[in-house]
Amino acid sequence: MDNFVRIFDTTLRDGEQSPGATLTSAEKLEIARALAVLGVDVMEAGFPAASPDDLEGVRRIALEIGNTPGSSGYPPIICGLARAVEDDIDKAWLAIEHAARPRIHTFLATSPIHMKYKLRLDPEEVIDQASLMVAYAKRYCQDVEFSPEDAGRSDPEFLYLILGEAIKAGATTLNIPDTVGYTTPEEFGALISGIIKNTPGIEDVIVSVHCHDDLGLATANTLAGLQAGARQAEVTINGIGERAGNTSLEEIVMALCTRQPAFRLETGVDTTQITRVSRMVSNYTGIIVQPNKAIVGANAFAHEAGIHQDGMLKHQGTYEIMRPEMVGLHKSSLVLGKHSGRHAFNERLLEMGYELKAEDLNQAFTSFKKLADKKKNITEADLAALVTDQLYRAQDIYALEGLQVACGTMGMPTSTVRLTGPDGTQHIHAAVGTGPVDATYKAIDAIIQAPNRLLEFAIHSVTEGIDAIGEVTVRLEADNGSVHQRTSPQTGRRQPRTFGGHGADTDIIVASAKAYLTAINKLLVASGRHGDPVAEGSAHS
Amino acid sequence: MDNFVRIFDTTLRDGEQSPGATLTSAEKLEIARALAVLGVDVMEAGFPAASPDDLEGVRRIALEIGNTPGSSGYPPIICGLARAVEDDIDKAWLAIEHAARPRIHTFLATSPIHMKYKLRLDPEEVIDQASLMVAYAKRYCQDVEFSPEDAGRSDPEFLYLILGEAIKAGATTLNIPDTVGYTTPEEFGALISGIIKNTPGIEDVIVSVHCHDDLGLATANTLAGLQAGARQAEVTINGIGERAGNTSLEEIVMALCTRQPAFRLETGVDTTQITRVSRMVSNYTGIIVQPNKAIVGANAFAHEAGIHQDGMLKHQGTYEIMRPEMVGLHKSSLVLGKHSGRHAFNERLLEMGYELKAEDLNQAFTSFKKLADKKKNITEADLAALVTDQLYRAQDIYALEGLQVACGTMGMPTSTVRLTGPDGTQHIHAAVGTGPVDATYKAIDAIIQAPNRLLEFAIHSVTEGIDAIGEVTVRLEADNGSVHQRTSPQTGRRQPRTFGGHGADTDIIVASAKAYLTAINKLLVASGRHGDPVAEGSAHS
Repeated sequence: MDNFVRIFDTTLRDGEQSPGATLTSAEKLEIARALAVLGVDVMEAGFPAASPDDLEGVRRIALEIGNTPGSSGYPPIICGLARAVEDDIDKAWLAIEHAARPRIHTFLATSPIHMKYKLRLDPEEVIDQASLMVAYAKRYCQDVEFSPEDAGRSDPEFLYLILGEAIKAGATTLNIPDTVGYTTPEEFGALISGIIKNTPGIEDVIVSVHCHDDLGLATANTLAGLQAGARQAEVTINGIGERAGNTSLEEIVMALCTRQPAFRLETGVDTTQITRVSRMVSNYTGIIVQPNKAIVGANAFAHEAGIHQDGMLKHQGTYEIMRPEMVGLHKSSLVLGKHSGRHAFNERLLEMGYELKAEDLNQAFTSFKKLADKKKNITEADLAALVTDQLYRAQDIYALEGLQVACGTMGMPTSTVRLTGPDGTQHIHAAVGTGPVDATYKAIDAIIQAPNRLLEFAIHSVTEGIDAIGEVTVRLEADNGSVHQRTSPQTGRRQPRTFGGHGADTDIIVASAKAYLTAINKLLVASGRHGDPVAEGSAHS
Repeated sequence: MDNFVRIFDTTLRDGEQSPGATLTSAEKLEIARALAVLGVDVMEAGFPAASPDDLEGVRRIALEIGNTPGSSGYPPIICGLARAVEDDIDKAWLAIEHAARPRIHTFLATSPIHMKYKLRLDPEEVIDQASLMVAYAKRYCQDVEFSPEDAGRSDPEFLYLILGEAIKAGATTLNIPDTVGYTTPEEFGALISGIIKNTPGIEDVIVSVHCHDDLGLATANTLAGLQAGARQAEVTINGIGERAGNTSLEEIVMALCTRQPAFRLETGVDTTQITRVSRMVSNYTGIIVQPNKAIVGANAFAHEAGIHQDGMLKHQGTYEIMRPEMVGLHKSSLVLGKHSGRHAFNERLLEMGYELKAEDLNQAFTSFKKLADKKKNITEADLAALVTDQLYRAQDIYALEGLQVACGTMGMPTSTVRLTGPDGTQHIHAAVGTGPVDATYKAIDAIIQAPNRLLEFAIHSVTEGIDAIGEVTVRLEADNGSVHQRTSPQTGRRQPRTFGGHGADTDIIVASAKAYLTAINKLLVASGRHGDPVAEGSAHS
């Protein structure tokens, strides 16, 4: 057996299914680009049957990322998820057909509880449907992956049977998911061993593992599966995903790399890209990484800094098993000042992994100069916030022109907002709220009139010192949900889409206004509203 | 061997060592009280030699929590950490002597790299010192725990030797730490098995495991250690701790409980208290829990809500291996409205686990009424924020009397602050900043003049909807660090103390001002500044 572990990233599919992680097609494309640079072998780009938007998002990734050779010399495999039904498989193929290396991933539940209550099928019917649908996918595509959903709670003997039939029908990868995060490493390792030992034809396919972290065991279970002979690991950046999330890409890759002599397994991942991709995914999804998260948390390497200042502890390895540079974490946070020129600015961005088009660079440089007027020391985190804010803004249907806020303990927080609408006209509205952000959002709502429910609102300061840029992420859901629905691959039910927004400014109320506008603009695009419904009774010039 | 796993909580010691987690003595006491209700068997209340403040904090816990019988009928064991030197052990005893069940925990590194570079001792000298200091601790206290630091990278044969000597010297618990989070579950399980098989006298003591999450394996390693025969697990709430943190209490407890037939082990923890303690620790330390954190993340049980709405999936267990009620998570978020009376208010708080004194209840009820005027639906999260803000405020040397803020895109954010000082005089100052919070903090600084460096600033909205209460946590460090230092138990070096603050208000700028004042007040108390240094040149009435 070879010792190469294929990294199958499902940030854009299983990760994006987490409540509130919904990404725009543009954001998905950027993340896919970053995943390709990171060196993942396969990326599951989405569930095309969820909605036309989802299909289009996967299609763009297949076209653009699926045809660009990565560091391995090959373009990454682009995978689309499909339930084991013809319509889903048709849509998956439509989405990925233009990738140089397309893969269809289809799945069907095999645990007693899922077969009985969710599928309402007998085990024999489940085998037939799986076999039929793998064969159906095979007509489109040489590379077919099959997953027996909830394998962690399935009867192993039944798994040997159904997996054997899937191989006969043409499956090339068999993925074993612990869908509900139920197993222990011992059990999961034994399950994989049993499958490899007992499934007819298994020697000709790749066995894959897909774990969830409900009991905090996703990483250990995945490693146990690899030790038992699996050679593909399904993971997400920052471990995002439904409930407690999926196995973290960064934990698997760094465990295999740091403990190479123990595992004797390798991946094709460029570990120095990990920090950058982690931050990008956190920014776009609005899903925060806790400071004590392994590998990518803000404190993960924090002890080390102190020790280096300490003359007593000369040897790096005393409290450190990984070097921060290995994951692309650079300690030199002070990078640019007021007098830095455009060349130095661009050089620094390139070092950080941002390659900007001339026009974007000009705009970013202007923002940088403005920031440098306000703030003495511009750190790498400031630059990242600034570029992110610059590059990945959604289509601006409404743009923020001006904001004026009064608040405090007087109890009448008031905000006046001036927006430019789609036809270039200006709209002004003032509103009172429970706080300055509430007042600002009420004023924006009065102008745009896109009824929505705010699900989440988070601000954090990206850098030390309160003169820093504040970053705000919001997440909202259209009140009129019917037009913004997508289908869940697991439950098959229609779920409302949520829209996320991100804004950065030294004034957190301004950042809050930007973030909200970004999310609202996404909602407007999704509902095809490019016109200009002017608020009744609002004062506008 | 019995099947009872002792839960040794080190949130207040190893957890509190995380950058920025510094807690006041009052906060530590509250957390200790909550840990006792949770039902932990042992709590490591601190490292008394770190500073006089730390000693005093442990002493108060020993007195108050260490003498109150918990759900088991006994008061919890109160443990103080000490390096293997007489002075540390003296201080640890001084801190815990009044507990009904005191324990001294002493440690000495045993890995080649630590002995050579940190201790600069030969292995024989390490054995002698460990043995001597365990015996020294034993003169004070029957219950002595010994840890060979960095055991995960130590020679097992050497561990058998030193642990055998520690038992001879009187140790009653032997704790095996994977200090740098280096081992795999297989390796760590084998290490514990080896120790139990080969250490003379081991049958008369409790073996304990203490893991770190640098590679995402802390939970799996701890469980592997328990399966190999360890009967104490050292853990923290939310897995906080240095770098990637410690093993999470909630993951160990819920894994043992959810997979009882697999592990056949039990704990004395009341799982329904988990959510409440998790939120308390997150609030007081300012260390955020990511939404995809197992058991206690905001999304950990999120899938479930959707499924229940779904007629197709009638059976709860389809995607759910734990019930949210088991960890004390109640879905009914809407609890009180404008017309709710004092009795209903108090009943709800009692249900949530808050038992307020009459005076505190009065104040909390007044705040509740004020909030109900602004906000239609008061949720459980609002109540928790309100009570937390009410109860656990630090000593107010300076109090916020008034705040008036103007900000927006004009670029001159201005804040005017009115504070009451320690002698009752009022101080007013106006300042301009890069944003409204910066301006507010500058105005406060100008009045109080307690030079500090802001390390962290985070805002989050606790409930759905932007009219909700916003919660702000800040963390700062005195610029003049020399008077606020504490000693690290691992490196022995002096580290600056950091001070955290928490504020809640529907106006996030007001909440930011409150949080900053709380932190500054803590800093003033720590530096013994109760006087009233008035800012020069500031306008005050």
